[in-house]
Amino acid sequence: MKLYQLCGKDTDVCFSPYGWRAKLCLLHKGLNFEEVPMRFLEKEKIAHVSPQTIPVLDDGATSIVDSFAIAQYLEATYPEPDLFGGPVAAAQAPLLNRWVDQTLVVGMVQLVLIDIHNCLDTDNQAFFRETREKRFGCTLEEVMAGRDEKRDAFRKSLTPLRLVLAKTPYLSGSRPCWFDYAVFGTFMWPHVVSSYPLLAEDDPVYRWRERMFDLFEGTGRKAKRAF
Amino acid sequence: MKLYQLCGKDTDVCFSPYGWRAKLCLLHKGLNFEEVPMRFLEKEKIAHVSPQTIPVLDDGATSIVDSFAIAQYLEATYPEPDLFGGPVAAAQAPLLNRWVDQTLVVGMVQLVLIDIHNCLDTDNQAFFRETREKRFGCTLEEVMAGRDEKRDAFRKSLTPLRLVLAKTPYLSGSRPCWFDYAVFGTFMWPHVVSSYPLLAEDDPVYRWRERMFDLFEGTGRKAKRAF
Repeated sequence: MKLYQLCGKDTDVCFSPYGWRAKLCLLHKGLNFEEVPMRFLEKEKIAHVSPQTIPVLDDGATSIVDSFAIAQYLEATYPEPDLFGGPVAAAQAPLLNRWVDQTLVVGMVQLVLIDIHNCLDTDNQAFFRETREKRFGCTLEEVMAGRDEKRDAFRKSLTPLRLVLAKTPYLSGSRPCWFDYAVFGTFMWPHVVSSYPLLAEDDPVYRWRERMFDLFEGTGRKAKRAF
Repeated sequence: MKLYQLCGKDTDVCFSPYGWRAKLCLLHKGLNFEEVPMRFLEKEKIAHVSPQTIPVLDDGATSIVDSFAIAQYLEATYPEPDLFGGPVAAAQAPLLNRWVDQTLVVGMVQLVLIDIHNCLDTDNQAFFRETREKRFGCTLEEVMAGRDEKRDAFRKSLTPLRLVLAKTPYLSGSRPCWFDYAVFGTFMWPHVVSSYPLLAEDDPVYRWRERMFDLFEGTGRKAKRAF
């Protein structure tokens, strides 16, 4: 199996939240896979799929695009160990996946946008700046204005996670499963690109993230950071 | 068991979203219970609990306040049939419960606030108007301004539910369980108080709600409406 992941100037710096989600699902399943790092402007590496978005998982002749589709493919193809945590949790996973995208991805991007830019090579920086400034309707630097206030709002938006963590060590109960990877994979994005402290150390989400860093022989903790 | 539920001028008109959630959980468990309707200004009926908010479930000498606490109590005390759908779904339920409150309750209240008022008796209307106008910072009538546009936004906010219903007939998969009751119980609120059509008939959420109306011998469908 091959997992195509987004990387920075340094090909060991893999920062995509979606790439991390897919990678953590593969690790949960105990599958062997090769990681293929890819920059924004190296789409020729995934010319065999459509749409050309990453992550992509190649499993023999089968190619899967999109981290959630990869999770569902892995669960259907390699049932053990269970990834979603039963049929009810699996049915509700699309809602939670969207919650992660709408709450965490949207909340985080404005806190680390300039750091993502800074970990890219010159050509990819130009591409990133042009596409993101068009999307946000202002400069990358302007997006970063009021960073600390935005961080306060972001931390507040994590309340639903704290409600779960008040009762159980993981977001899926006594053991981590898909939802933990969806959320933790997303936290790997700011962790890899930025030294800006996102979470307060006394936050239950911080302590949960510490536990997640330790999984799979410390894969998250050992990940190369951009600075 | 006794379930204390909020009612209107007509004691058969029970409209509280939280009361409905608790009632549906009791029906799921197949338990016998008596319903005790209560108006806003009849708090003496639940003088035995603190805080004095409804619904309240009295089970012998035990009293439980709050619909989610009632669901958890029922699951712990009467394990069969399973209400949450396994440990992973149970762990994530507090997050989903909050999602329902933040998305559905907040989205619906501004669409039916005046209808809630209209189903109350004169004294309760005065109480409701005073407390809600203070909360919203404007008159009940002002809250209702732009109702159709707000309904459009509300319908859009249901996208996460449609992602689930694209795959399975219920929000918990092949059979309804707690999350279906949390969402459907909340939909019973506008349904009971208002004739304003909240959902479009071609919406998968509308079709799911029709299935939910049929449960427990049509309990939701037969519920007395205020108009």
